[in-house]
Amino acid sequence: MECYLDNSATTRCHESVIEKMSEAMRSDFGNPSSMHKKGIEAERYVKEATDTIAKVLKVDPKEILYTSGGTESDNLALIGVAEANKRAGRHIITTVYEHPAILETCKHLEELGYEVTYIPVDEFGVVRIDALKEALRDDTILVSMMYVNNEIGAVLPVEEVSGIIKDFNKNIIFHVDAIQAFGKYLIHPKKQGIDMLSVSGHKIHGPKGVGFLYVNSKVKIKPILHGGGQQKGMRSGTENVPGIAGLGVAVAECCGGLEEKVDRLYDLKEFFVREIEKLDGVTVNGYKDRRSAPHIVSASFEGVRAEVLLHALEDKGIYVSAGSACASNKPAVSKTLQAIGVKKELLDSTIRFSFSEDTTREELSYTIDILQDILPVLRKFTRH
Amino acid sequence: MECYLDNSATTRCHESVIEKMSEAMRSDFGNPSSMHKKGIEAERYVKEATDTIAKVLKVDPKEILYTSGGTESDNLALIGVAEANKRAGRHIITTVYEHPAILETCKHLEELGYEVTYIPVDEFGVVRIDALKEALRDDTILVSMMYVNNEIGAVLPVEEVSGIIKDFNKNIIFHVDAIQAFGKYLIHPKKQGIDMLSVSGHKIHGPKGVGFLYVNSKVKIKPILHGGGQQKGMRSGTENVPGIAGLGVAVAECCGGLEEKVDRLYDLKEFFVREIEKLDGVTVNGYKDRRSAPHIVSASFEGVRAEVLLHALEDKGIYVSAGSACASNKPAVSKTLQAIGVKKELLDSTIRFSFSEDTTREELSYTIDILQDILPVLRKFTRH
Repeated sequence: MECYLDNSATTRCHESVIEKMSEAMRSDFGNPSSMHKKGIEAERYVKEATDTIAKVLKVDPKEILYTSGGTESDNLALIGVAEANKRAGRHIITTVYEHPAILETCKHLEELGYEVTYIPVDEFGVVRIDALKEALRDDTILVSMMYVNNEIGAVLPVEEVSGIIKDFNKNIIFHVDAIQAFGKYLIHPKKQGIDMLSVSGHKIHGPKGVGFLYVNSKVKIKPILHGGGQQKGMRSGTENVPGIAGLGVAVAECCGGLEEKVDRLYDLKEFFVREIEKLDGVTVNGYKDRRSAPHIVSASFEGVRAEVLLHALEDKGIYVSAGSACASNKPAVSKTLQAIGVKKELLDSTIRFSFSEDTTREELSYTIDILQDILPVLRKFTRH
Repeated sequence: MECYLDNSATTRCHESVIEKMSEAMRSDFGNPSSMHKKGIEAERYVKEATDTIAKVLKVDPKEILYTSGGTESDNLALIGVAEANKRAGRHIITTVYEHPAILETCKHLEELGYEVTYIPVDEFGVVRIDALKEALRDDTILVSMMYVNNEIGAVLPVEEVSGIIKDFNKNIIFHVDAIQAFGKYLIHPKKQGIDMLSVSGHKIHGPKGVGFLYVNSKVKIKPILHGGGQQKGMRSGTENVPGIAGLGVAVAECCGGLEEKVDRLYDLKEFFVREIEKLDGVTVNGYKDRRSAPHIVSASFEGVRAEVLLHALEDKGIYVSAGSACASNKPAVSKTLQAIGVKKELLDSTIRFSFSEDTTREELSYTIDILQDILPVLRKFTRH
């Protein structure tokens, strides 16, 4: 049996996405900037995707910018806002456990003279609202927080956070990294007070190499890639037409029947958490119920090294992740697990299981069975 | 008959490329950063493409960085070098007629305090070597020039330029935008003294949304996208595995049998230039022989507006470009045509015909026939 339980790292590209992309590459290969029919045909794919995305988010199509993926979306959001608004201030707020695309970009901004405050999280991984309130300053220009944490599935109280920010100063821009949340939560930026939203294609059964950034039309940003002036000058470079078309299909599909799919995921998660906790020496990190995301289960295995367990599971056709693993494959201590206070001896014994709409109960049962078999064996090896 | 003669804007994606990409998306969708088999399988596509590209360029696979396309490659080259080497100096040299991905990035760098010298070109569009020699300074850190000009096909005397630069100061980094040249010229950066080379996928029958930047291992650059540390930290973000795999296929194909293909293109060009010059009131810009690129013909049509001619040709199934058209579709006066001294009244009467290995003599004959028919008609309309 093959159980791909690493959907927070990347997802299987859906057949409908591949078909749409092949069509765009095969028949309508024009450059959207070309003035002739071939350009217009290519442009049509972009427009169709944009309309789909704008409709799902209930925003204006003009507010969608395409990027090469989540990392570029996050970089553009942070650098773009910082550079365009530095006269208003140079203070940025984020959290201690963001994705490296945010944390490393913040480091870069610190080198450029910006000041960044990193808000802590509680033991369930939820952002400390009191700390946010204390951190807000007159020169704060941007708050960037992830909707769903990629390692333990902790969820941001989006409306509460945006309310606090906007009450303090309505000009502060609120960026949300929704890369793990999109397709699991109904996101309506305007209603929720989100000014910018990062989404990646390959986390929602779409293509790698493409993503988007929603930017409220009132938000001023500066481009980070300069050139031919595509996308109103905010993101130059020939549009990745097949990628954008595939992204549009993925967005439409993942947001169709969302509630039912999420209910099913929560049922799976409930089952998996219940069964995994029956095993000896296993702790599930963060909330176990609907207060956390439906598709991520982080579990620590006493006396077993994560990497060893990962490969033992791999041997049985089960694919999981140690740490966040959408960073590059050098092993590093997880900032998220440290932030929620996971015991030191368990930091290197934690595995992330992440589901998708394709995940079945049979796969999870099988995984539990395998864990039951191999954990005692692995522990035996470790102990002696 | 359909004649796609806008191959410098973008090319038809080859079937072999689409197949490779579909395979990567369908069967091997893993994240290369994942530690399990699915990650390793995905990584294999990247490695295969990198080996192909490195072999063609005769460089080390470690010297290839993947980007989202030509624009990002150019941005990374310029900003990356400037920011990493600013202690050595803040002077950059480029030409007056680079692609906007270079010129706009230079503008951005000027805002950051760098000084840029723009070298003029002669009436054939060839960079003025005397002006380059005069421009070199003790604080020059970077020279960036395009191999083949995208509007008229003028060719850079690469070895001569690199010789002059390196004779002056071997630490000056020489970046070449080879987006129009790759697949038409045998490029061996190390032999030719090129330190960095930008290439785009969709100009060589590969996918949109992907390109690469060759960076000599001795060149220090800083990343422009920050995050998970992929590609040795120089370009974060989950690798666009299908795009990279498709790019690898496109590189292998376009560099196979290069000499024969280029000979054939020159034969086509010779034929086309000869026939088009027989038409009344037509001037071909730049060199007409093998001193210019094999796939680009720029022609000015007296008394006819380029946009009108473009749409008249489109009506007959012939797709061409007015100006460079790989910038966004706002009409602007061409810097290249101005730089080579095209008469003012012809600036807005110039069309670019650009060929690919798929272009046939029949298509070009047909285009000539159509031009012969419609030019008098269009001129009649314009004059009265």
